[in-house]
Amino acid sequence: MKTSSLRSSRIPQVKQVEFNTIASSFGGLSTQTSLLHKYLAATEYPLLENPIKRGLLRLPTSESAPRLAAGIRQAFIEYGPSSTGHDKCALFLVQGGERNIFDQRHLEYELQKSEDPVLPVFRLPFSEILQHTSIADGAGRQLLYKPPQLPTHTFEVAVIYMRSGYGPSDYPDQSAWEARYHLERSAAIKCPTVLAQVAGTKKVQQVLATPETPSNPPILSRFLPGKSAEISELSSTFTNIYPLDETEAGLKARKIALDPELCKSYVLKPQREGGGNNVYRTAIPEFLKSVPEAHWTSYILMELITPPPVRNVILRNGKLQQGGVICELGIYGTCIWDQQAKTVLHNEQAGYLLRTKGDKSEEGGVAAGFGCMDSVAL
Amino acid sequence: MKTSSLRSSRIPQVKQVEFNTIASSFGGLSTQTSLLHKYLAATEYPLLENPIKRGLLRLPTSESAPRLAAGIRQAFIEYGPSSTGHDKCALFLVQGGERNIFDQRHLEYELQKSEDPVLPVFRLPFSEILQHTSIADGAGRQLLYKPPQLPTHTFEVAVIYMRSGYGPSDYPDQSAWEARYHLERSAAIKCPTVLAQVAGTKKVQQVLATPETPSNPPILSRFLPGKSAEISELSSTFTNIYPLDETEAGLKARKIALDPELCKSYVLKPQREGGGNNVYRTAIPEFLKSVPEAHWTSYILMELITPPPVRNVILRNGKLQQGGVICELGIYGTCIWDQQAKTVLHNEQAGYLLRTKGDKSEEGGVAAGFGCMDSVAL
Repeated sequence: MKTSSLRSSRIPQVKQVEFNTIASSFGGLSTQTSLLHKYLAATEYPLLENPIKRGLLRLPTSESAPRLAAGIRQAFIEYGPSSTGHDKCALFLVQGGERNIFDQRHLEYELQKSEDPVLPVFRLPFSEILQHTSIADGAGRQLLYKPPQLPTHTFEVAVIYMRSGYGPSDYPDQSAWEARYHLERSAAIKCPTVLAQVAGTKKVQQVLATPETPSNPPILSRFLPGKSAEISELSSTFTNIYPLDETEAGLKARKIALDPELCKSYVLKPQREGGGNNVYRTAIPEFLKSVPEAHWTSYILMELITPPPVRNVILRNGKLQQGGVICELGIYGTCIWDQQAKTVLHNEQAGYLLRTKGDKSEEGGVAAGFGCMDSVAL
Repeated sequence: MKTSSLRSSRIPQVKQVEFNTIASSFGGLSTQTSLLHKYLAATEYPLLENPIKRGLLRLPTSESAPRLAAGIRQAFIEYGPSSTGHDKCALFLVQGGERNIFDQRHLEYELQKSEDPVLPVFRLPFSEILQHTSIADGAGRQLLYKPPQLPTHTFEVAVIYMRSGYGPSDYPDQSAWEARYHLERSAAIKCPTVLAQVAGTKKVQQVLATPETPSNPPILSRFLPGKSAEISELSSTFTNIYPLDETEAGLKARKIALDPELCKSYVLKPQREGGGNNVYRTAIPEFLKSVPEAHWTSYILMELITPPPVRNVILRNGKLQQGGVICELGIYGTCIWDQQAKTVLHNEQAGYLLRTKGDKSEEGGVAAGFGCMDSVAL
């Protein structure tokens, strides 16, 4: 999972942008990016026209690659021993023609750095789940995987790490939904389960963040009973987010969204992952009018965070761009819990991702073609 | 430097192929290749139709990248403190449009892993030596380098690491020779000096290896006086190598080289580096006749080493080739000496390179397009 935040300029504080619970990417490359910047800081920055002396910058390495791998390893261990007599494995569920492979590979390499325990990893396109996996007969519901390159081998899948399964194109037909259901009912530890995936939607973020009113009772206190200090601290990281339904908050939001002036401070978000799906500012009224009103509730309206102005240079596709930039910090985490026992078995911070984009660009997704990889200087 | 050897099949022993004292390449990539094979041995070999169990193979990592870098670092230290007030640096002298950059970069990365001492590295094309370096006035003859990207900075060059300067195309005109002379007379530690470079020629290898006859007095004993056991052991690694001059050995060699039958066990070598320049077996007589007799002395005639047959699969340019292969083992070394004091300051083994080629290919150079990178299984 990954929590992304922006520093707000109006009141200098951290504001939550989103919370990703599926396919949080670039953890593999973020470690490499921070190493790249450390290397440049040692070798090139001292030679700039305005030199930065070696050792002057505090450039923490992003430990995202080893720490995300450590989370997968921990899940592999928590799964327990194989009960089918087959060796255990982890499955990386990827997209067809996967472009993010160079990010994902770093997690695979990290997983092979330890042999305690040996952890075989296989990459499987989401579209081939039903072809190469089956569920064992009996109450164990073990997920069995036969590598297509050697179908005489069978592995018991301990961990499913999903780098797919979050967008409409991953579910082109009924069999894709059956494949997801098939995984879900298996005994493998899913990263994530459907429940955890849904918990990361913008709708849930909105439900947690919508300002409390008489018709909108407090939600956070249900999850943090009696912890008013924590609730207050947590709430302060939220920006205003509204539903577009017919509640009091929703009706207020509809008014804002359709107003050509008020809409300028907002972004309209559907329940999607991966960037490129949001509608910004003055584009909102026209867009909303083009959507049947019955579908409005599938969007949320979020007040834009205004980060402080920063100037920097972005290198992207071999071209340098200089100007105002916005930095979005993501903090990875790995969490393993027992749904039935309601106990958390593992809950760890897992490194960071910094994405920087030009301040004229609304979107921030790196793979979607907007932001670029960065690392922090403290 | 690098000593390359083949295992001979007739008598099972190691035979020296050549000794490179300039631009010995692939030390950076060899470490990566051995890591690649270790990774595949952990993840893929257990899944082969004839599986190789994890941990069964002994795959020593080639320490060539860190150890070659350690040699450069040691030279940087041996140079002593800067005497011009400028920071010291190392220069990597490369070729224009350098294809081997992805090998060389690993040495640069290794050099930045330590800050004891800080060791700035610059890449400079051989053709730009005179443009960007100068020799300080006075007896110190310090080599000064001004990085073209920031000519207000000056560095005192402690170490010159040559990945160029070994082939005719590096010396297209008189100024290239002047550039080499300029480096040579500077105080920088050269890897290599002209003397060390010449010591690596095939001619020197021949002089050391030509079988002793009354008209060809022993040479090795001049360098290893009184060490007859070592001389005998060393000599046993030599194959028969002959001059093509008018000495007794040379006249014998001319007869072999021009004989359509006898020539089949030989290779004719000019004084060149990098592969692609040798003449093999039955091509020798015709080639030799095409060369003016006055130039024959610039070649040596070497008995071919016949390695034991090995079968393997080579992946090259994305294509698999299966069949008989020949493996050539190179052992890197780093050596620093004081020419005047005649003392050796540092002399270390520096990892290995294994090159594998199809047994139908005569040449072994990887960059020249014949062999491929490999690593050893003990």
